[in-house]
Amino acid sequence: MVFDDALDAQAPTAVTTNPISDGASADDLEAASSFKGTWQHIGASKQQAREALLGPIEDDADLSSLAASLLTDEEAAIIGKPAHILAADIAARRLTSYQVTLAFCKAATIAQDATNCLTEICFREGLAQARSLDTYQAEHDGKTIGPLHGVPVSVKDHIDVKGMDGPSGFVGWCGNCVADTNALAVSCLVEAGAVIYCKTANPQSLLSIETNNNVYGRTTNPHNRTLSPGGSSGGEGALIAMRGSVLGVGTDIAGSIRIPALSSGIYGLRPTIGRLPHSGLRGPHSGMDTILGVVGPLATCLADLNLFCSAILERQPWRREPQVLTLPWKTELTSPSPDRKLRIGIILDDGLCAVHPPISRAMNKATRTLKAAGHTLLPWDPVLAKESVEVLFTACLQDRGEEYHEHMRLSGEPAVPLLQWLLTERVPSKTLSTPREVWDLNVRRDTVKTAALAQWEQLNLDVLLCPGAPTLAPRHDQSRHWNYTSMWNVTDWPAVTFPIGKYSGVEAPEEEAETRYPPHPPRNPIEEHVFKEWSPEWYRNAPVGLQLVGQRMQEEELLGCLKLVEAALSA
Amino acid sequence: MVFDDALDAQAPTAVTTNPISDGASADDLEAASSFKGTWQHIGASKQQAREALLGPIEDDADLSSLAASLLTDEEAAIIGKPAHILAADIAARRLTSYQVTLAFCKAATIAQDATNCLTEICFREGLAQARSLDTYQAEHDGKTIGPLHGVPVSVKDHIDVKGMDGPSGFVGWCGNCVADTNALAVSCLVEAGAVIYCKTANPQSLLSIETNNNVYGRTTNPHNRTLSPGGSSGGEGALIAMRGSVLGVGTDIAGSIRIPALSSGIYGLRPTIGRLPHSGLRGPHSGMDTILGVVGPLATCLADLNLFCSAILERQPWRREPQVLTLPWKTELTSPSPDRKLRIGIILDDGLCAVHPPISRAMNKATRTLKAAGHTLLPWDPVLAKESVEVLFTACLQDRGEEYHEHMRLSGEPAVPLLQWLLTERVPSKTLSTPREVWDLNVRRDTVKTAALAQWEQLNLDVLLCPGAPTLAPRHDQSRHWNYTSMWNVTDWPAVTFPIGKYSGVEAPEEEAETRYPPHPPRNPIEEHVFKEWSPEWYRNAPVGLQLVGQRMQEEELLGCLKLVEAALSA
Repeated sequence: MVFDDALDAQAPTAVTTNPISDGASADDLEAASSFKGTWQHIGASKQQAREALLGPIEDDADLSSLAASLLTDEEAAIIGKPAHILAADIAARRLTSYQVTLAFCKAATIAQDATNCLTEICFREGLAQARSLDTYQAEHDGKTIGPLHGVPVSVKDHIDVKGMDGPSGFVGWCGNCVADTNALAVSCLVEAGAVIYCKTANPQSLLSIETNNNVYGRTTNPHNRTLSPGGSSGGEGALIAMRGSVLGVGTDIAGSIRIPALSSGIYGLRPTIGRLPHSGLRGPHSGMDTILGVVGPLATCLADLNLFCSAILERQPWRREPQVLTLPWKTELTSPSPDRKLRIGIILDDGLCAVHPPISRAMNKATRTLKAAGHTLLPWDPVLAKESVEVLFTACLQDRGEEYHEHMRLSGEPAVPLLQWLLTERVPSKTLSTPREVWDLNVRRDTVKTAALAQWEQLNLDVLLCPGAPTLAPRHDQSRHWNYTSMWNVTDWPAVTFPIGKYSGVEAPEEEAETRYPPHPPRNPIEEHVFKEWSPEWYRNAPVGLQLVGQRMQEEELLGCLKLVEAALSA
Repeated sequence: MVFDDALDAQAPTAVTTNPISDGASADDLEAASSFKGTWQHIGASKQQAREALLGPIEDDADLSSLAASLLTDEEAAIIGKPAHILAADIAARRLTSYQVTLAFCKAATIAQDATNCLTEICFREGLAQARSLDTYQAEHDGKTIGPLHGVPVSVKDHIDVKGMDGPSGFVGWCGNCVADTNALAVSCLVEAGAVIYCKTANPQSLLSIETNNNVYGRTTNPHNRTLSPGGSSGGEGALIAMRGSVLGVGTDIAGSIRIPALSSGIYGLRPTIGRLPHSGLRGPHSGMDTILGVVGPLATCLADLNLFCSAILERQPWRREPQVLTLPWKTELTSPSPDRKLRIGIILDDGLCAVHPPISRAMNKATRTLKAAGHTLLPWDPVLAKESVEVLFTACLQDRGEEYHEHMRLSGEPAVPLLQWLLTERVPSKTLSTPREVWDLNVRRDTVKTAALAQWEQLNLDVLLCPGAPTLAPRHDQSRHWNYTSMWNVTDWPAVTFPIGKYSGVEAPEEEAETRYPPHPPRNPIEEHVFKEWSPEWYRNAPVGLQLVGQRMQEEELLGCLKLVEAALSA
């Protein structure tokens, strides 16, 4: 694909003749779904199809500013802005949606080349949509169709986008997942004016906090390609960190929005189950209700998390999806009085796996700073951590991964290393084989939730601050301990991760003194593994971030508290 | 038990020495749980224990006004008032809680004698609690502790009340269910000032829309003892219809609040899952999340449904039970402008089982009247009715009733006839034996929900009016078709049943002409059974009522719409 104005003239026709567009003929769709051959061959075909829609690009750039350095000054300025500013610029006609979308298509191409973060490409359709939004605005005295008018948004692979494939990391699904309609979250964003221009990588099985599959291969971290961008929304994390996207749609059942956000130095929100629409997703274990995944945003700033949720909930998705809570978004709650003092629960260690030194120092520093700013800090006892982990894995693997095996058998593909680890080390000892075993698991989950709520109320918390993982962005295939994020999936509390800096890769003597590591003998084999994963130089340039956790159905309050926390930390 | 002022003096001590009171000693509790012997013997002991706490009473009274006729004029006036008026009278010190509670204890005794609706009795504790509330008020310048200050409330047997047994209809549970704490709904009511004075009958297994068990026997309908009061909150229905209670706590997983309310000529609300607290209940299939039961009120008027919900939600139960939606009650929405015109969906027939003539005439008349009052009526197509029934029974019987059998084996008791019917005719063909079969069932449920929501939105409804059952209060052991209520458990929409009159037991010629019955050849064996259950004289004096259904999480709007519907119907 060449980015020039030729697209402009041909856009409307181009869209209807593209095999993955809305107007695709039956023949086109058949051609698109004709991925045949060995699993290796299918993956290669899929990658080839993607390459054909991208263009050639240099491979030796400095990743931290690669996109900006390769674009024009004007384009670099565009991709440097957050979504709410871009929306304001487009609404005020300082920028066109076409300009903005084109800049992000270019940056996404660069990001793909650097990190292998994209899957399905619909630049042509996105640019045509952008042009059509510009035309609408021109013909309606500058009026926009919604709060995201003209802003490009990227979408995780397993979330349906009309007319596009979404194999979700399984080779055997390639070509068989062309969506008839948008997932509801995508529909709401499009109705709010968003431009969809690409889909992003997720790992095989989706149940991983890294991003690797046999269709597209491994996604790497733009800050340091020897590290993972996290997962399962790792394509989103890498793409947004490269500014190849400004706002992404991710999903999270155990940390899959928050781990990529932390690993890539951006923001990620895991909302309460049912707060945002979740219909129109592909992936294993549909109907597994013990722990439900959620849709949520990844973004470059706090304000854009608010914009994403508010734009979707303005569309009243509860009128289209029965699981969505009838609960309008209250933006005013995201801006509390700057003088408000919070009661903040603190977790330094979850009782199962100590965190690496840069993370414990970040927690220590945040704790000191918040205290100095007048907030009250209270230790949180993660008393049911082990049970929480077991409930999560038993829920997600209650069929001992049989469904994953079934999807892999479609193509004969092997499990990627981390799925293999899950299927070996994390499956319950036996398949749940009676309804009552499933019911008992739900009761165990509710027991964890009840105990957590009792502690929250006893401490009378506003919010809870904790690490999001025991390591910075993990080395490839090494992530093992999910509990810092997954425990909030079990309690169903909204949680947001936010960046606070980058790690140098060097421990100064005073830092070494502050955070002796390992702090104790390993308490279990996973902690032992995490201990071995500590070597400062491995994590050079890795982003450092933390996690803030709120109460069920109170996403706005949580974002409001994060505003206060960030103000204190940056003061 | 003798109702005299002697109780007054001894109340505080009496409470602490009663074996089922809060202050029971370990020995007392052991004695209370020492039900041994055959299942027949255990049931007889339980009935004997109850009789010992009641007094002798005449058995030949006219049931429709029995309680009032046997009480003093003052007491009869008290039991004739709804809860919100009693609360106002107590708050204004026109009545004491003791007077009110005593009147209801007496009426409850009469109701028990007439219908066999009570299980556990705690009149002494209730009267002591009433006295203590009166004392509080006297010592605090008339101040009350909450909106239910001094109002007696009855509680369905399987809902925990501290210090009391709750065998929930299983012989083998007798004496083993003495609760350490109140169920959360009960706690909230008590904190709002309610006086707990008795528990009420539910059927063996709880999964029945009649009320019969081997512990206490069959509960009958106060309007006509050859009929059932419905179930599973049938004890509540019978007790409240007799004015032996003014407000009751029931539960509903398939119609268990609404069927008793309809059968007894009172009001019953099934709220959205999670709207009211549900923790602290005993009963089978804990953790079965596919279709969850809910707690809700049975009452003598619409205003009391509002009072019940508002009193509980004022206590912010979401701070104590993680499943409760963080959603304060908005009483103002229960009083819409009297001029508001509604869009009302109408179901005359659910496609599976035609309703008996008095019910179809009630629907016809309501439809005509509402139309004349300016409301818009729109036919609802119950398109997924069969699937909805199958989802419900597969969910509740996914273990093919194995858990019921287990509880029955504890004592060797047999299944009562309707449980036997369920276990024979309604169990799925095989036990769900893999997690994925359970997931598939959840997906089927969600498909029903999504289709129903789409139709609601397409019709742009405010509310939906329909029968609550195909028959009036059923003849004992004859109820078979639950779908008119259970379909709203599958969609998880709030639904309220309300009385509109009583049936004469005679079909006038013009009535017979209006409602030809049966209207068509039977469409299935259950409809055939229901056809055979029609003989006008069987239903003499049976209450007639209908059901109004709203949208998820919008109980207040539903009650507001019912106010408009009732205004039109009574005009």
